[in-house]
Amino acid sequence: MSKTMRDVGEFGFIRDLRTRLASRNPFVVLGAGDDAAILRPTPGREMVFTTDLMVEGRHFDLKTMTPRQLGVKSMAVNLSDCAAMGAQPKACVVSLGAPKTFPYKKIMSFCDGLVQGGRPFGCLVVGGDTVGSDKLVVNVAMLGEVEKGKALRRDEAKEGDVLFVTGTLGDSGGGWHSLSHPGQKAKEARPILHQRHLAPVPRCQVGRLLVRAGFSRCAIDISDGLSSEVNHLCEESGVGAEVHAQAIPLSSALSYYCREMRLDPLTFALDGGEDYELLFTAPVSKAAKILGRIAVSTGVRVTPIGRIVSAQKGIRFIDEKGRRRPLKAKGFDHFGS
Amino acid sequence: MSKTMRDVGEFGFIRDLRTRLASRNPFVVLGAGDDAAILRPTPGREMVFTTDLMVEGRHFDLKTMTPRQLGVKSMAVNLSDCAAMGAQPKACVVSLGAPKTFPYKKIMSFCDGLVQGGRPFGCLVVGGDTVGSDKLVVNVAMLGEVEKGKALRRDEAKEGDVLFVTGTLGDSGGGWHSLSHPGQKAKEARPILHQRHLAPVPRCQVGRLLVRAGFSRCAIDISDGLSSEVNHLCEESGVGAEVHAQAIPLSSALSYYCREMRLDPLTFALDGGEDYELLFTAPVSKAAKILGRIAVSTGVRVTPIGRIVSAQKGIRFIDEKGRRRPLKAKGFDHFGS
Repeated sequence: MSKTMRDVGEFGFIRDLRTRLASRNPFVVLGAGDDAAILRPTPGREMVFTTDLMVEGRHFDLKTMTPRQLGVKSMAVNLSDCAAMGAQPKACVVSLGAPKTFPYKKIMSFCDGLVQGGRPFGCLVVGGDTVGSDKLVVNVAMLGEVEKGKALRRDEAKEGDVLFVTGTLGDSGGGWHSLSHPGQKAKEARPILHQRHLAPVPRCQVGRLLVRAGFSRCAIDISDGLSSEVNHLCEESGVGAEVHAQAIPLSSALSYYCREMRLDPLTFALDGGEDYELLFTAPVSKAAKILGRIAVSTGVRVTPIGRIVSAQKGIRFIDEKGRRRPLKAKGFDHFGS
Repeated sequence: MSKTMRDVGEFGFIRDLRTRLASRNPFVVLGAGDDAAILRPTPGREMVFTTDLMVEGRHFDLKTMTPRQLGVKSMAVNLSDCAAMGAQPKACVVSLGAPKTFPYKKIMSFCDGLVQGGRPFGCLVVGGDTVGSDKLVVNVAMLGEVEKGKALRRDEAKEGDVLFVTGTLGDSGGGWHSLSHPGQKAKEARPILHQRHLAPVPRCQVGRLLVRAGFSRCAIDISDGLSSEVNHLCEESGVGAEVHAQAIPLSSALSYYCREMRLDPLTFALDGGEDYELLFTAPVSKAAKILGRIAVSTGVRVTPIGRIVSAQKGIRFIDEKGRRRPLKAKGFDHFGS
């Protein structure tokens, strides 16, 4: 029989963890194992601080996701918040609630996923908390660093700015649709969409480049759908926006999946959650440089999808036929009915 | 009918919250509302970073605790971790999982409790995450600041040091016992013990004084019972300890309750959880100063309960009759059977 959390106990678990997490850098004076980690901030930097809670059956399902993937994704959603601030991720603390009978091997895979998810972005797990719980619950709280006064904020969009997005939109929503509607149709596209849903890649490099090159002051990550995020950004900045349907970047996997399944890919792009791409703004004068430099330096596609306009003009969506309608926020609301 | 989380929605909730949390200080450049908060670390300080997860039915029960008390306590357990590091609490992010049908008024009371819990200690709520969940789930992640190289660590106890504790031990365990065994016996003592269980006071002032006065390098907070924490501290420091039963500070409320209920108060002091007092060590030469200065400056009682000895001598408990036995860690294990 394989060991459970109960067999190992909280303190045995913490011992095992410390071995796995043991890694230092100039930022981490003391990692997991004390009442708190000790960190040494880099002089001249500000810190960004964010957190995300994921609950089994709401945000993830271990039927469609391995514990390791869950670990990687728990990191990714927080790394994406750092990316949206233009910050370099540095350290995080992870809380895990798990049933007593949960297989210990799976918990260790989850922890390996955390390390795997953080490593490419320079983010270390420096502590956490583990408790008993009926359902699996994961909370990550993350710190990043950014040059003083240079963080990308939601409230810095200016009239006339170009609106950009990274990557392609709607893939994660399409992936979720495919996972919940298994079948043979469009089967070539499905694994690609599943991957985009289960293992989103946070756009940390792009966020850092936007700050370091002085390209942008304003960004948000697309976690609740483009429609929702454009609205957030405009509300915070006190501006309006025009978004062009034809400009929204769609992957060929999503287009193909939607064609076969008779779905509208734009619905996923506008209202599907969890893409974790960046939406950012920049003056027109920088647009050409941005498009070239980001592609060359990071390999990530960047697409202009519209413009920031005055608040009076509202937040509008211009469809394929040139018709304008308000772009309503229909993204995911965790308490919506 | 009163409003629920579903009626208000995630974004309505966040709007309400921002109004309640709106408060700035030189440390907080940008509070709740963006992808992450922006913080400005104090030059020359290090940061401590800690997190605690609480799950309904495991760590708290809304039958015996108001939502406001839950808010205050969620802060207290993290503030206590900062105290144990000797750090000044600065900012935290709070994740809340709640059922869609949860009354909105209770959520707001919980948030008021967070603010109320943090304010006396200078800690602001700068962000968070809210999600749907069957049971109430609360996670707080907190940052504090401490003078470079001065944090109180578990691994700094030295042979010959005196072992001190703040306050009285076992009250929280007694309070929990009383809440789960309602009755008329010892009824004068019960409210005092309930208060100690439901609203523990983090020892931040003591922690700061230990650092600033150079009294101690080594502390841990007593969240899982004295027996457990003495063992943690000794293991990390590679030392042994002697703890004297007669020296362990007990409140008159606990003594009275236990006499009436025919219970042993020492069991609560040694193995009961959630006292959130500090256990710390200091050289004998500083003992007199510590006892005087802490009482005068903070009003908190400090009691020497034993000595740090060599690892070879082990971790021993000396009972009222002078008999020695190993002090085994029997504190709370979240995954124990």
